[in-house]
Amino acid sequence: MSANFVENLELGMEKLHKIGAFLTVKEGDRVNTMTISWGNIGFEWRRPIFTALVRKSRYTFDLIEKAESFTVSVPVNNNLKKELGFCGSKSGRDFDKFKECNLELVPSKAVETPIIGGEDMIHYECKIVYKQAMDPSLLDKKIQEECYGDDDYHTLYYGEIVECYRS
Amino acid sequence: MSANFVENLELGMEKLHKIGAFLTVKEGDRVNTMTISWGNIGFEWRRPIFTALVRKSRYTFDLIEKAESFTVSVPVNNNLKKELGFCGSKSGRDFDKFKECNLELVPSKAVETPIIGGEDMIHYECKIVYKQAMDPSLLDKKIQEECYGDDDYHTLYYGEIVECYRS
Repeated sequence: MSANFVENLELGMEKLHKIGAFLTVKEGDRVNTMTISWGNIGFEWRRPIFTALVRKSRYTFDLIEKAESFTVSVPVNNNLKKELGFCGSKSGRDFDKFKECNLELVPSKAVETPIIGGEDMIHYECKIVYKQAMDPSLLDKKIQEECYGDDDYHTLYYGEIVECYRS
Repeated sequence: MSANFVENLELGMEKLHKIGAFLTVKEGDRVNTMTISWGNIGFEWRRPIFTALVRKSRYTFDLIEKAESFTVSVPVNNNLKKELGFCGSKSGRDFDKFKECNLELVPSKAVETPIIGGEDMIHYECKIVYKQAMDPSLLDKKIQEECYGDDDYHTLYYGEIVECYRS
């Protein structure tokens, strides 16, 4: 792994939490993106891994359950605030988010799911290598109350980061 | 979260992978530490989270299954290479690793499990908020072969990072 790769990993993680990011998934002919501000990055199974969380109620869940990849695009200079707002509050069942937000899909280098085009963004291209639905019985009670009052639990998707770069 | 907290988080993550770290767990009167080089860091459930992986065969597994906290201590300048080697290859069932390696246990600021004393280390104090045993049927076949030929799967422990600092 190059120093650049690691630097981008870290910058992306910091900005993901502060600014948010586009989690994009392509499955067959369907593509959707949603806004995330949670997620984690690390090294396991001898690979750099991005872990994304998707609630079962989401349109993205329908896609990612069948998909082999996802991408995460982080606008590090926060120039897509309005677009992140739209993609985090509207569903891909009701809107073509790319059209509504004028977002461009750009082919990825290594996976089938495209990235979101734009200047000065960090992109993670991830191949899904593991996933697991959360087991509520093992979760801290306070977090259950704070985050899952509606029982809409997340599934965790572990993606091997096969490419990480800044556009 | 202060800028310092985030800076330490990121430095620790980078060094964890390159150098390794001590994963320490206290349960009742028993304390043990083991060497890790995997793990990931991020933000989920509105909290900074450290995810540690422990195989079921480990002595640490016996402790962490009943514990409420763990700590991770990363020697960022790689001055404890021999000690990391010992703690990664010997079992706490056979050795008092602290005595053998002359490692000092220092009380944590916020959790029951102590940290490993020493100069220039990044410490994560973590309160366990979620855990889940891996489900082999959902894992990539190549990773299964590479990492789990012996069926000794990991359990993932998600710790809320309640303190993160450099000693």
